[in-house]
Amino acid sequence: MRALWLEAETLRFRADAPEPEPLVGEARIRVLCAGVCNTDLELRRGYYPFAGVPGHEFVGVVEQAAGHEIWLGRRIVGEINASCGGCTACRAGRLSHCERRTVLGIRTRNGAFAEWLALPVANLHEVPAGVPDEAAVFIEPLAAALEIQQQVAIEPGLQVVVIGDGKLGQLVARSLALTGAELVVVGRHATKLALLEAAGLRTAAAADLPRRGADLVVECTGNAEGLSLALASVRPRGTVVLKSTYRGAATLNMSALVVDEITLVGSRCGPFAPALELLASGRVDVRPLVHARYGLDEGLAAFEHAARPGVLKVLLRP
Amino acid sequence: MRALWLEAETLRFRADAPEPEPLVGEARIRVLCAGVCNTDLELRRGYYPFAGVPGHEFVGVVEQAAGHEIWLGRRIVGEINASCGGCTACRAGRLSHCERRTVLGIRTRNGAFAEWLALPVANLHEVPAGVPDEAAVFIEPLAAALEIQQQVAIEPGLQVVVIGDGKLGQLVARSLALTGAELVVVGRHATKLALLEAAGLRTAAAADLPRRGADLVVECTGNAEGLSLALASVRPRGTVVLKSTYRGAATLNMSALVVDEITLVGSRCGPFAPALELLASGRVDVRPLVHARYGLDEGLAAFEHAARPGVLKVLLRP
Repeated sequence: MRALWLEAETLRFRADAPEPEPLVGEARIRVLCAGVCNTDLELRRGYYPFAGVPGHEFVGVVEQAAGHEIWLGRRIVGEINASCGGCTACRAGRLSHCERRTVLGIRTRNGAFAEWLALPVANLHEVPAGVPDEAAVFIEPLAAALEIQQQVAIEPGLQVVVIGDGKLGQLVARSLALTGAELVVVGRHATKLALLEAAGLRTAAAADLPRRGADLVVECTGNAEGLSLALASVRPRGTVVLKSTYRGAATLNMSALVVDEITLVGSRCGPFAPALELLASGRVDVRPLVHARYGLDEGLAAFEHAARPGVLKVLLRP
Repeated sequence: MRALWLEAETLRFRADAPEPEPLVGEARIRVLCAGVCNTDLELRRGYYPFAGVPGHEFVGVVEQAAGHEIWLGRRIVGEINASCGGCTACRAGRLSHCERRTVLGIRTRNGAFAEWLALPVANLHEVPAGVPDEAAVFIEPLAAALEIQQQVAIEPGLQVVVIGDGKLGQLVARSLALTGAELVVVGRHATKLALLEAAGLRTAAAADLPRRGADLVVECTGNAEGLSLALASVRPRGTVVLKSTYRGAATLNMSALVVDEITLVGSRCGPFAPALELLASGRVDVRPLVHARYGLDEGLAAFEHAARPGVLKVLLRP
């Protein structure tokens, strides 16, 4: 099949990539549309040693689902962690932390930048008819944004800062805005900030952010500078949520965390059902975030485009 | 008065230190006994630029309390953060995070390694008659240990690791043992580990600790190695509590925190009332932790003694 292929930090287009072979309980899915995420760009930079088809944001149609024929022909999105069901983490209900998990396009499972992919039927969610492909493709990062609200109690009036106006920051901000929190988004790109303002959100420059003032700061930049700003902005006994994965380490003054009793919360994948609900009801509008569309065979150009400063979501259509 | 005096990272004994002059609402307290904490040793190493009388662990007698005469003659311990009552943090009930706070022997308030000190009457707690001075002097670090239980829900059966068998680790372990958690303490000093075992606690060597297994890890060593071990020992979606302040920074793989959704919680001062209750009821026995006693004029020797490997609490008596 046609697919993008990542190996040794090199991405290439292959017309002869191996087709997925669904295991028992898995569905074969034809990809309708896929999105390029920062994690894909980081994988190519060697953040994690993955070889195969990258891509984990997608919407598709079930073409094969042995024993689960009810799914045939349905338009679906899919949770990206395929869990074993038997390990300590699975038995404790932490499926996305399964010790033996494969992760679509990230860990020992070929991903969505291809004509077809395979995922367990248990991972699938049907997309409501009113949600177009180019909205449904945002389900995975929007669910990841909603993970924050699974981890931290957010009350109306809470002083919240989102650092980063990129792909993830846009979704985090749009979903947090629905909580009634007093939200401000910090970014460096006029066009991205304008998008947030058009959605009714308040934005600010980093220099104008009150120091030690926010109850909750969400770090969505994935760089050490963003983390420093987050730690400078949070109030004593406040919380900093870390949403970005990136290669490399950060240096922290641990004593400042102790003295100010700061809580740092790592945050990854989130719940699909409420994310689909937000898209179906129109309470989160992701359409302004689509910046470009490419065919699979133009995948390298799509990656280059997605890596340019100021660019939001780049979509791939097989 | 006689006191220890810290200035420019140099500690000396002074016979002519200035006596405390209580402000409105403050009491003058005669120190009966004071304890040397790692924070005192770190202050001398320049962890925080304090000049004056160090020392924040003490038990004393109220000798003067204008307008609050009911306190006269009472044997007391005192919370170390003196708060303003009016700032955002105080008004939100986070008194120990007051933006204008002074901290006994740590920040712009002379401390307990002296004949007398001054603290707001609001900070005082009477010591029950059955609690001897050499137990009451542990109230501040024991309260700091109990702060963990204010921040993290600890259920019976929770897999908890305490890293560090020193002064703070001993108190943290002894108080966490009362929760019914499955507790193991990691340390490097045979005599300190033996003390924990004598108190009925389970101990282990770092090498024998399961990787990624603990629900909760409490880091009490105050060094980067302890932090690394904590992060290696905690399970995905687990919590690492940081209890130690020390000079310098640590380097962290932030992506690992995100992928494993680890929570880091900085933890400082805690509640005095339950700590006093544990001492009064005998449920925490601190007497085995006293390793040496010195007079104030032997304060330099006391600091040297406290800094030696394997040494637990060193007490000073004016």
